[in-house]
Formats: sequence, C-alpha cells, structure tokens
Amino acid sequence: MSSSEAECLFCKIVAGDIPSTAVFETATTYAFRDINPQADVHVLVVPRNHHADAAALSSEDPALLAEVMLAGAEVAKQEGIEESGYRLVFNTGPDAGRTVFHAHLHVLGGEQLGLFGRP
Amino acid sequence: MSSSEAECLFCKIVAGDIPSTAVFETATTYAFRDINPQADVHVLVVPRNHHADAAALSSEDPALLAEVMLAGAEVAKQEGIEESGYRLVFNTGPDAGRTVFHAHLHVLGGEQLGLFGRP
Repeated sequence: MSSSEAECLFCKIVAGDIPSTAVFETATTYAFRDINPQADVHVLVVPRNHHADAAALSSEDPALLAEVMLAGAEVAKQEGIEESGYRLVFNTGPDAGRTVFHAHLHVLGGEQLGLFGRP
Repeated sequence: MSSSEAECLFCKIVAGDIPSTAVFETATTYAFRDINPQADVHVLVVPRNHHADAAALSSEDPALLAEVMLAGAEVAKQEGIEESGYRLVFNTGPDAGRTVFHAHLHVLGGEQLGLFGRP
C-alpha cells in the first residue's frame, strides 16, 4: 500500500476505519450515502481497491469499472429510482470539484435533477 | 437491427446519416460536440454499437464500457482539460433529463463546473 492509499479517505471508509452509511456492497465494490447530498438520493459507489480516478480505473481494471457501474444501477433499483431516473457522475480534477482521489461514482436521483455543467 | 435502432438518433449520427462535429473516434467509439453545450467543452461519447443505457452497456459489454470511458479521458486530453478537470456523466430516465436512448457519456469541462444534482 502506498502512502497515498494509507491516507485515502475512501480506503479508510471501505476498511471501516471511518464510519459510513452502507447502502449496497459486493465483493469488489462498496456503496454509501454522500454526507453532503445534492439530491434526495445521493450515493457514492467505490471500488474496494484503490484507483486514482475514473480514467485509471478504466485502464487498470475495466471489469471492475463495469462492476462499479452495475453497483450504481443496483443502488438505483434498491432506492426505487430505476424508473424515475438517475444520474451517474465521475468527477476528475479541480474544475469538476473533485476532492477525494479514489475513483468514485456518484448516483443521484429521487427528484427532477438540474443541469450538470456550468453553475 | 431492431426498429428502435433504425430510429435511433445516435445510431444515425454514428452512421453519418445525421451530421455531427467529430472530436475523436476509435473502432468502437465515436465522440462529437453536444449541440446544446452546458460548458465550454461538452462532448458526447457513444459506443458505435447500440446499447439502451449505461446499465445495459455495463452488463452487455463491459470492455466496451471501458473503451467509452477511456475515449472520454482521451477527449479531455485533446481538449486540454485533463489537468484543469472534467466531469463524466451518464443520465438514465426522465428525472435525469435523458432524451436519447442510446448509451452516451457526457464529457464536460473547460471552466469551473457547478453542482450536478437538484436544480
């Protein structure tokens, strides 16, 4: 484990060292509620293994990327928003407001969502 | 080809039957500018093959999902927003404002982006 992983917030959440509200989990993924929700439903899905961002996850472990996406779809089903609709978001870098450097998928829904580009 | 594919806007764009402004392409993906951009950079990446939405693409062809994501990262590099940051978005269903039923990844950046949940 590199020092960046040892200090990684989401690695600590996956390990249970920092508490979170679990929503769904598989052998390779973990889903929990965002502590600053932007919608009625706002869940984060992370791969248990550390990958820096969406591009790294996609190139380093494409099967795991698909598992993260399918976990997001399963969360939508569990939360009852599969039919009403949901948004899946990966943010990379400062302009996207990204703050944790462990790839994570946002799952949002439960109400009519707004636009997703400029403020 | 099903009738839904025959009538699919993005299948027609991939086929060149409807014009678009190409940004990047591979053997399996095609990227073009959104005609209603929500940010300075707003590009759509689609798999050339028809898949209804992100969940279907993830379960039916996980390798292709990764190719779409990596094409999105390559678009970010080409557009000069790899370091400043970018957002990758899949919308599913009415609450997310989805309008075309061929899985597509939004790539947004080039300026400070806003929130991405409720309006």
